[in-house]
Order: sequence, then structure tokens, then C-alpha cells
Amino acid sequence: MRLTADARGVYPIAPTPFLADGTIDSGSIDRLVDFYLACGSTGVTVLGQLGEAPKLEHGESVAIAGQIIRRAAALPVIVGVSAPGFAAMRALAHDVMDAGAAGVMIAPPNTLRTDDQIAGYYRQAVEAIGADVPFVIQDYPLTFSVQMTTAVIRRIVNENPGCAMLKHEDWPGLEKITTLRGYEKDGSMRRVAILTGNNGLFLDYEMERGADGANTGYAFPDMLCDVVRLSHAGRREEAHDLFDAHLPLLRYEQQPGVGLAVRKYLLMRRGLLTSDAQRKPAATLSVLAKAEVEHLLARLAVHDPRAALGTPDGA
Amino acid sequence: MRLTADARGVYPIAPTPFLADGTIDSGSIDRLVDFYLACGSTGVTVLGQLGEAPKLEHGESVAIAGQIIRRAAALPVIVGVSAPGFAAMRALAHDVMDAGAAGVMIAPPNTLRTDDQIAGYYRQAVEAIGADVPFVIQDYPLTFSVQMTTAVIRRIVNENPGCAMLKHEDWPGLEKITTLRGYEKDGSMRRVAILTGNNGLFLDYEMERGADGANTGYAFPDMLCDVVRLSHAGRREEAHDLFDAHLPLLRYEQQPGVGLAVRKYLLMRRGLLTSDAQRKPAATLSVLAKAEVEHLLARLAVHDPRAALGTPDGA
Amino acid sequence: MRLTADARGVYPIAPTPFLADGTIDSGSIDRLVDFYLACGSTGVTVLGQLGEAPKLEHGESVAIAGQIIRRAAALPVIVGVSAPGFAAMRALAHDVMDAGAAGVMIAPPNTLRTDDQIAGYYRQAVEAIGADVPFVIQDYPLTFSVQMTTAVIRRIVNENPGCAMLKHEDWPGLEKITTLRGYEKDGSMRRVAILTGNNGLFLDYEMERGADGANTGYAFPDMLCDVVRLSHAGRREEAHDLFDAHLPLLRYEQQPGVGLAVRKYLLMRRGLLTSDAQRKPAATLSVLAKAEVEHLLARLAVHDPRAALGTPDGA
Amino acid sequence: MRLTADARGVYPIAPTPFLADGTIDSGSIDRLVDFYLACGSTGVTVLGQLGEAPKLEHGESVAIAGQIIRRAAALPVIVGVSAPGFAAMRALAHDVMDAGAAGVMIAPPNTLRTDDQIAGYYRQAVEAIGADVPFVIQDYPLTFSVQMTTAVIRRIVNENPGCAMLKHEDWPGLEKITTLRGYEKDGSMRRVAILTGNNGLFLDYEMERGADGANTGYAFPDMLCDVVRLSHAGRREEAHDLFDAHLPLLRYEQQPGVGLAVRKYLLMRRGLLTSDAQRKPAATLSVLAKAEVEHLLARLAVHDPRAALGTPDGA
Repeated sequence: MRLTADARGVYPIAPTPFLADGTIDSGSIDRLVDFYLACGSTGVTVLGQLGEAPKLEHGESVAIAGQIIRRAAALPVIVGVSAPGFAAMRALAHDVMDAGAAGVMIAPPNTLRTDDQIAGYYRQAVEAIGADVPFVIQDYPLTFSVQMTTAVIRRIVNENPGCAMLKHEDWPGLEKITTLRGYEKDGSMRRVAILTGNNGLFLDYEMERGADGANTGYAFPDMLCDVVRLSHAGRREEAHDLFDAHLPLLRYEQQPGVGLAVRKYLLMRRGLLTSDAQRKPAATLSVLAKAEVEHLLARLAVHDPRAALGTPDGA
Repeated sequence: MRLTADARGVYPIAPTPFLADGTIDSGSIDRLVDFYLACGSTGVTVLGQLGEAPKLEHGESVAIAGQIIRRAAALPVIVGVSAPGFAAMRALAHDVMDAGAAGVMIAPPNTLRTDDQIAGYYRQAVEAIGADVPFVIQDYPLTFSVQMTTAVIRRIVNENPGCAMLKHEDWPGLEKITTLRGYEKDGSMRRVAILTGNNGLFLDYEMERGADGANTGYAFPDMLCDVVRLSHAGRREEAHDLFDAHLPLLRYEQQPGVGLAVRKYLLMRRGLLTSDAQRKPAATLSVLAKAEVEHLLARLAVHDPRAALGTPDGA
Repeated sequence: MRLTADARGVYPIAPTPFLADGTIDSGSIDRLVDFYLACGSTGVTVLGQLGEAPKLEHGESVAIAGQIIRRAAALPVIVGVSAPGFAAMRALAHDVMDAGAAGVMIAPPNTLRTDDQIAGYYRQAVEAIGADVPFVIQDYPLTFSVQMTTAVIRRIVNENPGCAMLKHEDWPGLEKITTLRGYEKDGSMRRVAILTGNNGLFLDYEMERGADGANTGYAFPDMLCDVVRLSHAGRREEAHDLFDAHLPLLRYEQQPGVGLAVRKYLLMRRGLLTSDAQRKPAATLSVLAKAEVEHLLARLAVHDPRAALGTPDGA
Repeated sequence: MRLTADARGVYPIAPTPFLADGTIDSGSIDRLVDFYLACGSTGVTVLGQLGEAPKLEHGESVAIAGQIIRRAAALPVIVGVSAPGFAAMRALAHDVMDAGAAGVMIAPPNTLRTDDQIAGYYRQAVEAIGADVPFVIQDYPLTFSVQMTTAVIRRIVNENPGCAMLKHEDWPGLEKITTLRGYEKDGSMRRVAILTGNNGLFLDYEMERGADGANTGYAFPDMLCDVVRLSHAGRREEAHDLFDAHLPLLRYEQQPGVGLAVRKYLLMRRGLLTSDAQRKPAATLSVLAKAEVEHLLARLAVHDPRAALGTPDGA
């Protein structure tokens, strides 16, 4: 199954589960994927920015992607193949497509500045992965320091038939969605799927601007699925009510650097990960931070029973 | 009155009000200051990052600061004097201190990288403004691209007796507050006031980590005052309830670039600004964005009557 | 006299002379200008990147520019008006044009990334200074971190009739000159003067690629004038011989940060500056560095008698 | 043979030779190494910044390093293992040390800012490669945008016994060498080898400041060997004469981006590379640029017969 431009819904960004000793926790991988399926996800993305990909050897990356692809069965799986050089990108893209991936995701290296450099980079990347491989543009200036205008995105889309999706996580980004959808309407850009990231911080209004869904790793993908469903169904205030209830916690998880530790802690608390361990280098949660997350969970549980997780082990 | 290290409470960041033709709107300046006083602010900061200072000529800056200082009467007024060169910083600091400012705020230029460069910069800035002038360190890496460790902040505080306050707006920043308060406890750093910025995005937990208050420009400074008061009074859940009600809108205003347009629009809607005009260059709100802000206001009004602003003019 | 697009020859970048106590040294200003005239300069640029402009108050900047304009008499004088805000840029541009400047030079702020941002910035700057004021684009990515493609430069030139000159100091930059001259030939860009900077590090081949001359502050502007003259006269090997003889010293002066100290020291050694003092903050030359400069001068004097400066005072 | 802190002389940075079709040219690898040996090199570095390492798959990198190690026989070979993640760094370091490398070279990722981040990164890197593996710090802010103060370098050296060498290519960098040698004298830092890079642009004075030699890829390593030898022998003016003769060409090769194309072209012209091909992405030399290089060679040949290479094929 190949990723196509009519993708929609929620593609959770899967973290890479490790056990406390740093080995890959394949039990948790299956549990995560089963959970994604159960809560209505329409796809999965693996080895994204918060998937700890740089801490994996090539063979490990291929193995993890393969396991997820097999477990997700009918769902399309996108694999992040961003790399500092095209040799590594080519090798990984080749191996995961062979293993059944639906497409790959490519972020620009943080040295790119001009429009020409950015468009040129994607042209070269497509040469590396193969023109027939569906790919996702990752537009995340907060992390990558690369600013893509809507004109550049249009250029990449139009120049590369393999481009099927934009993972939109510019900030601010609402007008960008509107402008891109306008390009489609005025015929200057073919339609691609727009799924939004940045931990979902603006998912509420992104949906109303024309996003097709979410492609992010917030620890409550079930909430993301519900918000996307409610929004698509035109149940606006219900969508906002649910989203707003999660916003205090979601904002806490969205913090750069420490965010992954929050996410893994939450997934562990939800019983989806055996451990919240990261491979080094890793930011960790202080005792105070954990108490804040527990406080946020307790407050959230008033509005959303999914957050009623009881007392943490050892507390 | 001089700024001292025991400052606390809320110092709103005042925007610079303009009329539609770009002239300074002194009527709105008075109205803003009166409002700050009425809602319990303990100080005011003017010509901050979102005060459009680079669009003002020197004489205008001094005039605006002077008007606010006179109107605020008993409240200490901090004036932003960040500048690309020490000549302009010296001139502005001198003139506003002459006019009765309580102190000045200094942000690092975005070319600084190493710890030594940062500490050296503040040493030179203090030489420029005068060692007896109280000053505020502005720690805002998201905007200035300068990363100050807690060790560097400690060094600046200890090397410069004039340093009275840290405007804390690192992100993530909770552990930073805890570490700095730890330095005070272990005796390695003298106490300075810590007021937090970044539009208050983490004010709820920043207070619990030891912040003395807020120093930011969110369009509901009355809410900031209430949250700080509730937090200081130990009424934790009430503080969070109020904060969480504002978070969807606050997050919307915190967006880089377009945030000031949101803020000025809100202040105009609240009757505090005559116009939401900015001098060029300025981001503006699209029709869709205005509708989103109105939607956020309407939703907020359910929880906080201050947001019940009726229908916008012309709507 | 207004700067026009047929400017050519050498426009030395004048340093700002200070006495040891930091006061402006107007005697040296006259001496410098007389020297520029005597050695065949065709213009002068003042308050450039190495003119210590941020250390000057507005009134000082206007006074210095005014003195140079009067002294240079028949020569066009360009004044750097780069500033973090358009208010300061507008004020300085207005005052120096009133005082008889031929045009102004504008560098982009280091926050610009995309092509649209850069073109938009120059549009706004032109609004600020007035559409009738001739201006120079400064393209110096090494210092400003802004990368302008030839397409962006063409856009700025074509959108702004006031653009008369490009101060070209990209690195590498030879192909850029060739491409821009190609745009003129294919009719897609009107002709502008291209004078090169970056301390003249590639002046030899830049002339052969189509540059009209030099716009830089190397302490031997007489050499720059000779190289430009020889190159225009087609005396290629002589031009290279002279240039190569200076290259070891020129490279030493081109170092970022410490370069201005080298330049001022050399100008003092040549009797053009009374003092090599800079206003703070300033890099200074160590004893070892001064000995290296003297060594370079002694070696240069074998090839160019202008460098035979005798023993430094106090040595 | 392990790299030790008393390394000195010239370690050329070997380019990775490709044939026109992108395959690795092992004949040229042998020829290069034989040439390095013949001209008096004391070591070799492979897979450096200009070794096109990101374009190689892991197996290719190991194979190239292995071939050079075997061919260089008695000479120590350093292998660049810089990578965006520690997994890839660990794997490559392990495999090349197994193959007989003398040590590895590690550059900091361009996201590092503060002193603590930089020191922390090297601590983690040492954990990844193994504490017993000798390593080289690469200090090249022009390319990596990471500014290491001398205090940070001292900290890395003192914290990590495996640190044997500094590849010094800061710019300006002369005072840095003097300061580091001062640390050794005052006992605050143990001695490490300092070999300089940045294409040798300041090799002449770097030697006089205390550098132990050169670690760079200029296409005339024989000249580098001679300058280092003359400098060590105290034959100062001869060293400068030879260096200055090469400076016009060396400067041309030192240009960012296009420099590698110049270098490979020169090595091909010298008969050391079969082809000047690079794997994509690659900057190429225009016809004008090639003519400039030929002109520089012809001018150099007057002073240094090694540059007398006759007419290029096809000319």
C-alpha cells in the first residue's frame, strides 16, 4: 500500500520503546500499534523527530519499521528517513520500502536558507530515494531552523510527483494552511494531504483551516482521533471542549527537549510502554516535573476519563 | 523609586498604542496605565520586545516612557533599552532614568554564543548605562537565539550589583527557575526577582517553582494578577482553573510574529486601545484569524466574564 | 550629486577615527578623506559595517557624515544607515541626504531567511528612506547570515528604482558576479554598479568577472585603486602581481572581529589616523599580533614601497 | 598504533576519490597515500569535513578507511566519525579502530550553543566511542557554527584522557593557540597536539604561535610539509616565502562550498586523482573558474616548480 495525497485522519508518531537497559522493547511496539488501531488511527509514522532515530543503528531502524509495518497490517506506515547525507537516506528508504512502508518523511537539514536551496534539496532527496517513492515534507522551522514559504512548498509539490503529504508544523501556521488550500483552489498546486504536527498545539483551528488530520505524537492519540472526527463531523464546540481540556497537558508535553520524556512517561502511565527509558543523550524528568504531570493528569481526568490513571507505581 | 530585587507581582508589558495614521496615541497610554493600576499591577514595563521600540525615534521613546512614568505615579516603571550598539543604549537609559524610570531591561544581541560572550556583554552594557542603574536580564532564547545557562545568569547577577530582576522566558524553563532558586539557597547567588514572560504560557507552574510573578503582555493582565495572587495565597486549584480557562486564547496570542496583532486587537476589543494599528512592518490579522479570536473570546466568557465583550464593531 | 548605477572605481570604507579618550578625531577624518582623494578614489563610504556606527549617537553619525561630505567635495559619499528598526534608518537617511550624501547603504538584519522576507525588507526600507534616495544593497552573508540569491538581488533591483549599487561581498562570490552580469545581458535585470567588499580578498578575479571596482576598507586603498586601474586597463599580470604582494597582509586584516584593530593600526602606522583607538566594545591587538603585522609590512615593503613605514613608535 | 598527544607534522585530509560514475576509485586512494608518504607527511586523516563522508554508506566508509590504513602502513590514520547520532558514531568508530585506525575525529553538531552543551557533547561522544579511543576535537566554527572558547577546549581535554589532538580551524585563531599553549605552561591543561586546518590560510603564523603542524587538505600537501619543516627549523623567511607564493591559490581553494571542487581539480591535474568527480550533491567548477585555477597555477609555477603542470587535457 502506497501513501497517497488523499490521506486523512490521524497518523500517530510512534516513539521508539526501549527497556531500561537500552534494548529495544518489541512488546511495547506491538502494544502501541494495537492501541493506535483500536482508537481509530488511519496510519502510523515511525522514526520521526521524536522517534530517537539518530540513536538507532541502520539495522535497528529497519527492524523497528518492519515490525510496525507488519503489525499495523492494513494501515499505511510512514518512515522518517531524514539524514545528514543522501547515502544514509537512500539506504534506509530502500530498505523500509522493501519492507512494506507506505512512504517516507523527509525534513530539511538546518543549513538550508534560500528558496532555491530548499527546493534543490528535495529534488536531490527524491533522486536518492527514487522518484516513485511517496514522501512527506516535514515543515518544522522551530526545530529545523528552515523556513519554507508556501511558494517553496508549492514548488516542491509541483516539481516532485512523489510528494503526497505535508506534515505541517510551522508556528504560527494557520494562515499557511489557508494559503496552501487556496493554491489548490486556484489550480496552482495539486492537492496534497496536510496533516499537522507540533504536538497538536493548534489542531483545533488547523482542522477548521483545512487540515486533513494530525500527524503527531501526543500521548493521547485517542483524543486526537476524536477531535479530528468531531471536527470533520462539524461538531465544532464539542471538538474544542475536548481539545481545551487537554491543552494544559498537551502544552506541557510540547516543550522542546524535555517533551519526549513527558510523552514517554505518559505512555508508560497509560500502560502502553513498559518503560519510559530513552537511549542517551536524553533529558529526564525531575521529581517536580513528574509531580506536575501527575497534577495535570488528575485535572484532566475531570474532563476526560482516559486520563484517570490512578496513582503511579511507587507513589 | 528604584527597582529592587524584592520586586514581585505583575509588571504588564505595555504595548505602544498608535492611531491608524501611525501617530502615538497618548490617550490610550493613559487608559492602559490606569487599567494596570486598577487591576493590581505592581509595576509596568514599556518598550519591551513587543513594544515596537525599533519603530520609534529616540525622542518618541523617551516621551512615551515619560508619560507612563508620570501616570503610573507610585508604580515602578522598567524601560527596555536593548539596542544594537551601546551608544543608543546609553542615551536611552540615561534619558529615561532622568525621567524617573525605576530601571531598564536589556536583552542580549542574537550574535552571542559562548558563556564568556554573554557575561562580557552584560558587563559592557552596565558600563554603558552606569553601574548604579537597576537592570533586568531578559532571557528569551526563542526570540533572541541566545542560550543562557543558569551558571551564566548567576555570573551576571554576581558580577553586576545593579542586576535586580530576571525576566525569565526560556522554554522549557521550569527547571531553570528551580535551579536558580537553589543557587540562592546554597548561597552561590544573591536573590533577584524572577518574573516570567513568554506570554505567561507556563505561569501556572512557574509560580509554583518559585517565580515572583509575571512580566508579560497578555491582553488580560487582570487574569495574570489574579493567578499570581491566588498562587501566592496557596489557592492552587483556583489559580489553575482560571489559568486553564485562558490558555486557549493565551496560546493563540503567544504565536511569534502575529502575536502582537492578536494582543492589540484584544486590547482594542476591551476598550483599552483606540486602535490596534501597528507601525510598519507589521503582521496583520486575517478575517479568519479575527473570527478565531472572537470564537476564543466567546468560549472564554463562559468561564471568565471579563471576556464577555459583546459583538465587535462592524460585525 | 546622487549615486548612479554607473558608479565605478574605488569607494574606500572610511573607519571612524577616535582619539584615545573616545572622542571623535576630526583631524584624522580630514586627513583620511584627503588621502582617498589623492590616491584616486572615486567615492567614499562612511558608517559601514566596520565604521563603528552602533557606537555613535545619531548626532555624531550625522556630524561625521557631514564632515566627510564637505571634505570630499566632488566625490559622492555613501552613508551606511543599517539599523534594527526603520525609525532610526529613516531619521539617519533623511539627515545625511539633507547634508549632501549621494546615497545610503542598507544591510539586511540577520533574522531574514526566505527570499520573500529579504525582498520585503528592502521594499519596506525604501518606504522608510524615500523612493528617490539612491541606495546600495550590502550582500555580506559571512557577517549578516543572510543569503541572497542572484534571483533575490535581481528582484530587489527591479522592484526598487532607487537601487544603484550592489556592495558584493558574498563568499564565494565570483559566480554571483558572472550571473548578475548575465542577467543584465539577457535583459532580465537593469544594470547596477557592482563594487566588491570583503576586504578585497578576491578583488583580483572579481574585476575580471565584471565588477566595477572596490568598496572596502583595506588600509591600502591606494593599492585597491591601482589594481582596479590596472585591471580596467587590461594589464592583467601587473594587477595580479600588485594584488598578490598585498595578499598576506590583506588576509590578516580580513579576519573577523580583530580585523578592524589591524586596519586602524595600519592606518595609524601610515600616518592617516592619530590613534588606532576604538570605542568599546573592541578587540585589541596583542603584542604578538602587532609584531606579525609589522612583519607582514616589512615583507610587503620589498614589493610595494608604500609599506616601507620605518620602525613603529616606541619600538 | 594509537594517536598520541605528541603528534606533529602534516596529516593531510584525504579526499574520497570517485570515478566519473560515482564508484569509489581505489587506485587513486593508493596513489594519494603513496604521495602523502613520499612528501613527508606524518599521518593521514580520512573522512573529514571535505571527505564527502555523508555520501558514503557505512560499509564504504569502513572500506575506504581500511584501505588507507593498510597502505599508510607505519603512519597513524585518523578517521572522521562525526555523525548526527551516537549510534552511527559508535558503529563507525568501532569498525575503523578494529581496522587499525590510530584515532577518530569528532566535530560538534551545529545545534550546540552553551559551554555546558559542548563539554557535555564530548563526554557523551567518548561514552559512545569508548574511553580508550584517542580522539581529535575539531574546532571549526565557520562551518559548524559552534563557538568553543579556550576554556571549553581545556575542559574537554582535561575531562577526557582520550583527547589527543585539537584540529584548530577557528578564524581568527592565532590568539587561541597562544592561549592554549599558555594553559599548558601554567599547568591548567595537559598538552595536546595542535594541528591547524582551514585549508592552511594562517599556517605561516600558526606555526609561530605554537602549532605542531597542519591537518588540512590543500592540494599541495608537499608545500605544507615544507612550510612546517622550515618553520620548525627556524628558517622563518623561507617558510613565509614559500607560503606566500601559494597563498593566492590556497585562498581560492579555501572558499566554502566550491573549495572541494577546486581541490579535486588540482589533485587531478597533479595526477593524483583519476577524476575530480564528486558524488551528488556537489558544487562544480565553471569554465571561468577552471581558467582562474589554471591562471593561478601558472603564476604559482614561477615560484614553485611543483605547480608547473603543463596544459590541461582537452585545452
